[in-house]
Amino acid sequence: MSREGVTPQSEDFSAWYNEVVIKAELVDRGPVRGTMVIRPYGYRMWELIQADLDGRIKEAGHQNACFPLLIPESYLKREAEHVEGFSPELAVVTIAGGKELEEPLIIRPTSETVIGEYMARWIDSHRDLPLLLNQWANVVRWEMRPRVFLRTTEFFWQEGHTAHVDEADAMRETMWALGAYAGLAREFGAIPVVEGEKTASERFAGAVRTYTIEAMMRDGRALQSGTSHYLGTNFAKAFEIQYQDEAGRLTHAHTTSWGLSTRLVGAVIMTHGDDKGLVLPPRVAPYQVVIVPIGRGEQGERTGVAARELGASLKAAGIRVHVDDNRPQLSPGFKFNDWEMRGVPIRLELGPRDLEADVATLARRLPTAAGQGKEPIPLARAAELLPALLDDFQAFLYKRAEAFRDEHTAVVDTWDDFAAQVAGGWAVAFHCGRPECEDDIKADTVATPRCIPSDGPAETGACVRCDRPSAYGKRLVFGRSY
Amino acid sequence: MSREGVTPQSEDFSAWYNEVVIKAELVDRGPVRGTMVIRPYGYRMWELIQADLDGRIKEAGHQNACFPLLIPESYLKREAEHVEGFSPELAVVTIAGGKELEEPLIIRPTSETVIGEYMARWIDSHRDLPLLLNQWANVVRWEMRPRVFLRTTEFFWQEGHTAHVDEADAMRETMWALGAYAGLAREFGAIPVVEGEKTASERFAGAVRTYTIEAMMRDGRALQSGTSHYLGTNFAKAFEIQYQDEAGRLTHAHTTSWGLSTRLVGAVIMTHGDDKGLVLPPRVAPYQVVIVPIGRGEQGERTGVAARELGASLKAAGIRVHVDDNRPQLSPGFKFNDWEMRGVPIRLELGPRDLEADVATLARRLPTAAGQGKEPIPLARAAELLPALLDDFQAFLYKRAEAFRDEHTAVVDTWDDFAAQVAGGWAVAFHCGRPECEDDIKADTVATPRCIPSDGPAETGACVRCDRPSAYGKRLVFGRSY
Repeated sequence: MSREGVTPQSEDFSAWYNEVVIKAELVDRGPVRGTMVIRPYGYRMWELIQADLDGRIKEAGHQNACFPLLIPESYLKREAEHVEGFSPELAVVTIAGGKELEEPLIIRPTSETVIGEYMARWIDSHRDLPLLLNQWANVVRWEMRPRVFLRTTEFFWQEGHTAHVDEADAMRETMWALGAYAGLAREFGAIPVVEGEKTASERFAGAVRTYTIEAMMRDGRALQSGTSHYLGTNFAKAFEIQYQDEAGRLTHAHTTSWGLSTRLVGAVIMTHGDDKGLVLPPRVAPYQVVIVPIGRGEQGERTGVAARELGASLKAAGIRVHVDDNRPQLSPGFKFNDWEMRGVPIRLELGPRDLEADVATLARRLPTAAGQGKEPIPLARAAELLPALLDDFQAFLYKRAEAFRDEHTAVVDTWDDFAAQVAGGWAVAFHCGRPECEDDIKADTVATPRCIPSDGPAETGACVRCDRPSAYGKRLVFGRSY
Repeated sequence: MSREGVTPQSEDFSAWYNEVVIKAELVDRGPVRGTMVIRPYGYRMWELIQADLDGRIKEAGHQNACFPLLIPESYLKREAEHVEGFSPELAVVTIAGGKELEEPLIIRPTSETVIGEYMARWIDSHRDLPLLLNQWANVVRWEMRPRVFLRTTEFFWQEGHTAHVDEADAMRETMWALGAYAGLAREFGAIPVVEGEKTASERFAGAVRTYTIEAMMRDGRALQSGTSHYLGTNFAKAFEIQYQDEAGRLTHAHTTSWGLSTRLVGAVIMTHGDDKGLVLPPRVAPYQVVIVPIGRGEQGERTGVAARELGASLKAAGIRVHVDDNRPQLSPGFKFNDWEMRGVPIRLELGPRDLEADVATLARRLPTAAGQGKEPIPLARAAELLPALLDDFQAFLYKRAEAFRDEHTAVVDTWDDFAAQVAGGWAVAFHCGRPECEDDIKADTVATPRCIPSDGPAETGACVRCDRPSAYGKRLVFGRSY
């Protein structure tokens, strides 16, 4: 920690991000290029996200399982597009138990292949379907441009893998997962994501259709924050995932996969953070409330006791609270700055004068409509009042992010407007649907189609780039992305 | 699943185990030798164990973090005993991103080295201590004699890693972890473990003292089910984990590590299972209660509806319940056998006659003092009565396992008695403390000292093997082990 704070976002967003993740003690750089150590403050955010998403996944009838980390190289080669997509990124084990292995083993970059192999073993009849599996796992992809939480060589995610009797059931599942991710992002991360389908060139390697949730970061760039894939019968054919239907015919299953990763922690940081550092939505915050007792000597002892009592009452009310009472070497001002930098939603200061008045002084990380500055809160009612104040802060962050996104999104019809718009936000525009045209757009502006939004109105027009008739029956969202 | 059941334990315990883990759908064999796929029924057991242990770990002030899977080879070499202990078991990544790596990367067999590196970065002052970290992780050790849950090439565990100002504080931590493991095993797994210290030859590679919980399986063999290590300053010196004490002197920290793994699932299986298959303690059981509706046609529809209603009322009461209502192709008798094989503590049968009497027929997986055979339970009171019946079953399993262990444990003073005793159980005997003498005992009987029990009475005598004066001031527990 240092007093100096972080580089302002407006000056250098990338430097801001790289500094804040370290200074807020979310992570440390790993010993191997592109890896990270997730420190307790960052890992708690991931645990909270996991708990919420795991609940959604189980409630919808999925069961967790665990497939091996190491996959025989031959498995990956069975689905042609899949292996082509992933081979440049693989980490390969060639030696084990002191001997060279006969067949190299791949550290999973994703688990469609190994799970496909077992689905084929476990599925016999239509009665075995749908098969709804999920696993929480680490995966490894050798990244050329690593970035903490967004693209790390090893990352953490859940990957859902399901098998169904037909396309309709598999598509229902694909859209269920997309909806679960959007719900998590909005309700938990306070991130106003856009849901939609990816164009062909942005699809997962081996998928028939890929759906995404896209979030806008505070530099106007898009972050793909979760994806759900309808795999058709591609993996079913590669791994012989077949079932006997009711008439006794052997039929290929239709499969899906969907994943959401530690990248979502990055999305939270870059959706809400400001020049002072992190701003955490209460549901994702390791500490929702921090109590800072103030005073030296005897006074300090009294406020320390009161702070611990207050902390216990908030904990009993289900609030994640931290009492900052074991750093006597630091000044109150340093502590305030420190917790602001670490994004704690609400700070309660407890000085001798507060104590005399039976109050704490409440300060929000950002002013909301409910409160602009510091204000007293009665100690006796803090546990009762704080849950609503935290909900208010959560809702405020969502609305603030939504307003930011809307301000930085525009419907455009000309190439000049498009280029100007994607320089700092998203452009909503017609596209002809040709991959070459996507390539041209990317070459000139770095922007790519983020998605064909699920809720966009039905419209047709001329491609913003090449003037050919539009495809998709609606406008696409374009933006630069991480 | 097959109707035939499993090989009886008495006939071939090892065959019984290998069959039951597959037939009960706990696991499937992995694609790579020594690996396993943990299926939902088995994984749920691990999730329940994790949730309980994670609560104990956090309650005691530890924080979860996450360190990288891949460790530079040079890190492992810094602690001489440690690398010597682990090098035969390592899996090595030599190729990544399409290129040969300059320095090979080890898939972590355990994380003392990489965590040591970061502890050194994060610790400056005595104020930073104790540093209490834990991570839930997969690790890889290339096993020569793999066995599902007990020794798999990849396994899952938590590893606690802590740093302290001195030996006294580090030893308190070491013993805290041992106590937490013993509590988990007893209260959650219904396993009456013995706590104690390992002799020098059974210590963790790099530890000063290793403590263990030892469980007796139903073939009389011991299973080391969790270990806690006081590492002294060995890793602190290798990784320069130092702090400034209150007088400003630079001092090496004292560190600990402790781990409990998916092996505990194997301990539960082999502590409680019988010739019919699994017997699961309710706290670890994925389904504590299974409801089997009986009847065909219209009667079947009625009992099906009633079973789902009963299921909903039990679920609302916090009971993990499964309604077996979507396998019309199977007979009730088949289903009863199936759930017995899968170890479900309590089965509720719901036939037309039960429904007329407003009851379900309750059957325990094993008779307890509270109930020997099938008995009716009023539908309206089931949700209220079942929690106590599940607690009774949990307590019954613990007492049964304790009685079994006590029957198969004997204090012995002669070599003949020792050899006879360890053939089918544990011998409690004096030992001289010489590693060569331990080797002799092992060569003749396969038995090893399992631990110097924490609660053994202070005694001295002659070594059971070589007649030299006893060491340790008490008797040791010997047994054959997994």
